[in-house]
Amino acid sequence: MSTGTTSRHPGDQNDQWVITLVCNDRPGIVNAVSAAVLAARGNITELQQFANAEGRFFLRLQVETEADRPEIEQALTPLGAELDADWQLDVVGRPVRTLVLASKAAHCLNDLLFRQHSGWLPVQIPLVLANHPDLGDLARFYGVPLEHHPVTPETKPDFERRVLEAVAEHDIELVVLARYMQILSPELCEALAGRAINIHHSFLPGFKGANPYRQAHERGVKLIGATAHFVTSDLDEGPIIEQNVVRVDHTRSPKQLVAIGQDEESRTLTQAVKLYAENRVLLDGARTIIFR
Amino acid sequence: MSTGTTSRHPGDQNDQWVITLVCNDRPGIVNAVSAAVLAARGNITELQQFANAEGRFFLRLQVETEADRPEIEQALTPLGAELDADWQLDVVGRPVRTLVLASKAAHCLNDLLFRQHSGWLPVQIPLVLANHPDLGDLARFYGVPLEHHPVTPETKPDFERRVLEAVAEHDIELVVLARYMQILSPELCEALAGRAINIHHSFLPGFKGANPYRQAHERGVKLIGATAHFVTSDLDEGPIIEQNVVRVDHTRSPKQLVAIGQDEESRTLTQAVKLYAENRVLLDGARTIIFR
Amino acid sequence: MSTGTTSRHPGDQNDQWVITLVCNDRPGIVNAVSAAVLAARGNITELQQFANAEGRFFLRLQVETEADRPEIEQALTPLGAELDADWQLDVVGRPVRTLVLASKAAHCLNDLLFRQHSGWLPVQIPLVLANHPDLGDLARFYGVPLEHHPVTPETKPDFERRVLEAVAEHDIELVVLARYMQILSPELCEALAGRAINIHHSFLPGFKGANPYRQAHERGVKLIGATAHFVTSDLDEGPIIEQNVVRVDHTRSPKQLVAIGQDEESRTLTQAVKLYAENRVLLDGARTIIFR
Amino acid sequence: MSTGTTSRHPGDQNDQWVITLVCNDRPGIVNAVSAAVLAARGNITELQQFANAEGRFFLRLQVETEADRPEIEQALTPLGAELDADWQLDVVGRPVRTLVLASKAAHCLNDLLFRQHSGWLPVQIPLVLANHPDLGDLARFYGVPLEHHPVTPETKPDFERRVLEAVAEHDIELVVLARYMQILSPELCEALAGRAINIHHSFLPGFKGANPYRQAHERGVKLIGATAHFVTSDLDEGPIIEQNVVRVDHTRSPKQLVAIGQDEESRTLTQAVKLYAENRVLLDGARTIIFR
Repeated sequence: MSTGTTSRHPGDQNDQWVITLVCNDRPGIVNAVSAAVLAARGNITELQQFANAEGRFFLRLQVETEADRPEIEQALTPLGAELDADWQLDVVGRPVRTLVLASKAAHCLNDLLFRQHSGWLPVQIPLVLANHPDLGDLARFYGVPLEHHPVTPETKPDFERRVLEAVAEHDIELVVLARYMQILSPELCEALAGRAINIHHSFLPGFKGANPYRQAHERGVKLIGATAHFVTSDLDEGPIIEQNVVRVDHTRSPKQLVAIGQDEESRTLTQAVKLYAENRVLLDGARTIIFR
Repeated sequence: MSTGTTSRHPGDQNDQWVITLVCNDRPGIVNAVSAAVLAARGNITELQQFANAEGRFFLRLQVETEADRPEIEQALTPLGAELDADWQLDVVGRPVRTLVLASKAAHCLNDLLFRQHSGWLPVQIPLVLANHPDLGDLARFYGVPLEHHPVTPETKPDFERRVLEAVAEHDIELVVLARYMQILSPELCEALAGRAINIHHSFLPGFKGANPYRQAHERGVKLIGATAHFVTSDLDEGPIIEQNVVRVDHTRSPKQLVAIGQDEESRTLTQAVKLYAENRVLLDGARTIIFR
Repeated sequence: MSTGTTSRHPGDQNDQWVITLVCNDRPGIVNAVSAAVLAARGNITELQQFANAEGRFFLRLQVETEADRPEIEQALTPLGAELDADWQLDVVGRPVRTLVLASKAAHCLNDLLFRQHSGWLPVQIPLVLANHPDLGDLARFYGVPLEHHPVTPETKPDFERRVLEAVAEHDIELVVLARYMQILSPELCEALAGRAINIHHSFLPGFKGANPYRQAHERGVKLIGATAHFVTSDLDEGPIIEQNVVRVDHTRSPKQLVAIGQDEESRTLTQAVKLYAENRVLLDGARTIIFR
Repeated sequence: MSTGTTSRHPGDQNDQWVITLVCNDRPGIVNAVSAAVLAARGNITELQQFANAEGRFFLRLQVETEADRPEIEQALTPLGAELDADWQLDVVGRPVRTLVLASKAAHCLNDLLFRQHSGWLPVQIPLVLANHPDLGDLARFYGVPLEHHPVTPETKPDFERRVLEAVAEHDIELVVLARYMQILSPELCEALAGRAINIHHSFLPGFKGANPYRQAHERGVKLIGATAHFVTSDLDEGPIIEQNVVRVDHTRSPKQLVAIGQDEESRTLTQAVKLYAENRVLLDGARTIIFR
């Protein structure tokens, strides 16, 4: 089955394109793809490839061309079919439509909004959904509406319904859980598979679940960390996108670990969102291929 | 119960001493200890303290004095009794008598012996015990005998008996498992409690048990690590002394992770042994206090 | 000369105090200081000391006591005189009055204001002075007025006069150059000696002066960094407080280095300000003593 | 001028080849090279490319094929000529013939020899040349002869002549200065251009020249580092291959910095040698392209 997705952005004009392609490995793929790029009058400015041990091949290209989307698609479509490949064509730097879920903790949302506003993070954020109202001022400062819906065991399905609604309404490509702190239902996880990123405040797979900093303090680890990963229904087990750690020592209380860890959480999440928005994250089963 | 241990090294002459002391916290400890140091004509050149949340107090001092051991002990003994403290007096830089257990992998043993030989690691290693003969030449190059005893389910008790024998014979203060790769019996763990250090080839508590690099590859982590910890009968759960990590990516096979991880394993173990040998590691239940 | 500064905050009530003390080294200082703490009914909760090779002694204590400032001062004053020490008494967590100088780049100011607002950074910022108006909205969002005064060769003395005026007006204890990008006059450097912190966007002493990221790109370094240091009239040569680096590779353009480096700049500056605000930074000639 | 170098290893049989190619950038290079690989019945298993801002294109491929060297060369030679490219064909994992220059400090030589012996570092070392005899036993333990020639102002030309002689005699591809501590003459630098790697014990460009750890101590930096770079006649200014840093604080004396830095020096040098031996280091003027 060939699943090239090229129809999302008709009409965009830009001379830098990104192509990602996943198919079974065999000799000649790079040659065939580069021939298609040439046919579309393109010059490859970035190229990364990887074949996993199971014989699956992953490719990411950046291409400079004066051709427009239809011309590039015309060159790639028959090849995609021949290779039975999943492929995508996108414009380099196009802002990815992103929905953020948040709660009370501000640091991750602040970093996302600040970096977006600085032009460093190619996303556009039409909406923040939160189960507490606290971050409304921050979101509004960056011109983003924040909708507040309390989440209780009773209202959780309503909140999740609103998430899906907003995804449809804003044609959302990526959902970011910026310390949202609620476990998503298996149904929502399924619906958002491969396009929802969470930040967990530990170096996974250590300290899954609740209160990782307290766990880290009890275990007496010498480094604490943060992990950005895709959301799956298996809690804190989704494919890992990015991880960072910072050194700590015995003098730090669980509360201080929380404060120290915030820096790692926000930069790890922002890095992961950036990698995703630049089409640098490809799924490989339970793992990710990251083409930096 | 006062358990000052000062009798190990009668006659040593040196003008730099290290004092460690653990007792219940209360106002005035530093004042009392510094008074005792003054009484022994000492000048404090290094001082670190920590009180944990449970009200236990930990102290490490380095002291310059022309007094000899009996004079220093005379100043400290009544104070130790009054505080009901566990305390130790040692000479800074005194080589700690260390038994190394090894198997086939050379990197940790090589680093320990090289650093010891360079004068950087204050240990003396009278013996290496190994369940394979492969590292004999390396040990002998550094002037250390390596005894080889195969370990099978049947002969494991013999090996462990030989460990305890060697501990007694060489008055061993520290046992280092330099990628020994065998699980010690609960009895041996108990006998060596607080004085046996293991290196685990993962960032604990992630990837306990066998084949951590294969586990790390399957999980797709972005950093791999090594953990030096005290040996306890609860496998890979002993108090952590030191941890380091190194960044990896999806291109690395489990076999490459093994090679990459060796650097972290050897330097993490050597750092932990150095900290221990310098009396910088104090036990605090399941955690360690590290006074760097 | 004894220069204890204790008069800044009469009336503050708090049970955690921080004492810093610098004097010539000699036996008995810790004993004498801890006796004074006991006299003020205090318990030492944190203690760090260092003696440099030139015989100068540095001490930082945190103390829990029910005594008030006059009682603690009464205990410390004679001792300070006897030791001919520079000493300070402060309340743990007291917000340090901080003036920020900024220009157009937002990331450092954003991090300072966000961290202050989160309760993580013990400063209060009554004013931002900037040579461009761009950051006004950001400052106002956090409730801080931003005064904009253009700086040209002609108006530079006016700006600097305004800085000194603001320092006096708000009883400023710390001036932070948050990517202010203007070289201060020797007179202003002198006037703010020991209480002005700058962030330089390189790993000093590499790449002093202008355009460090372009210099780093030309030199092909594999890590870029940021350095927070005290301002002195000798450009980029002031005592270093904190440094961080991040790995880069040949694919990064100077412009991308700028974006990557922003994270290091903002967290390095914020860490330095936090260390300073917690009285953890002591000057030792051209170096700093950092009691973490 | 086309400078493909393929004649060095006639007769080698292996199914993994590495191709590096440098030429002026233009559309179609990847397509042309991958066509040549296909013509040689090859499958690309690794591919990295980079075009610098000046329009120079760099490529590294790993290829699996049953073809032998002549068949691969036959496919690449016309292409190399057409692109006017510098290209090389080598066998993946082939040990690079390496001459080590050493002095008294053992840590770098020890790491190189240990890693080579472990099978981790694809070099063969036929000879160590040293200006002191101290490391003879270590080299011999790994089966490598060490020739000792004292170096004085008078005998330095003799030593350098011996270096060039040994390079010719053993068909040396890489010269490694493993803390050799002597400045090479401009003539020798010229003769070894692009194939001599030095380790400098600082994070360049900071602290060039002698005694970098003393300089680092005086400047009070918070991180110290090591830099592996190509040797040029401009001291410590050659293209940088690899750098690492480690955190230090004010308590460390210059002597302790030396000890701490040894770990960074040896692993940085070994990493650089590994990258070079795997044909992952391409020169780009004063910079290096590193295809990890």
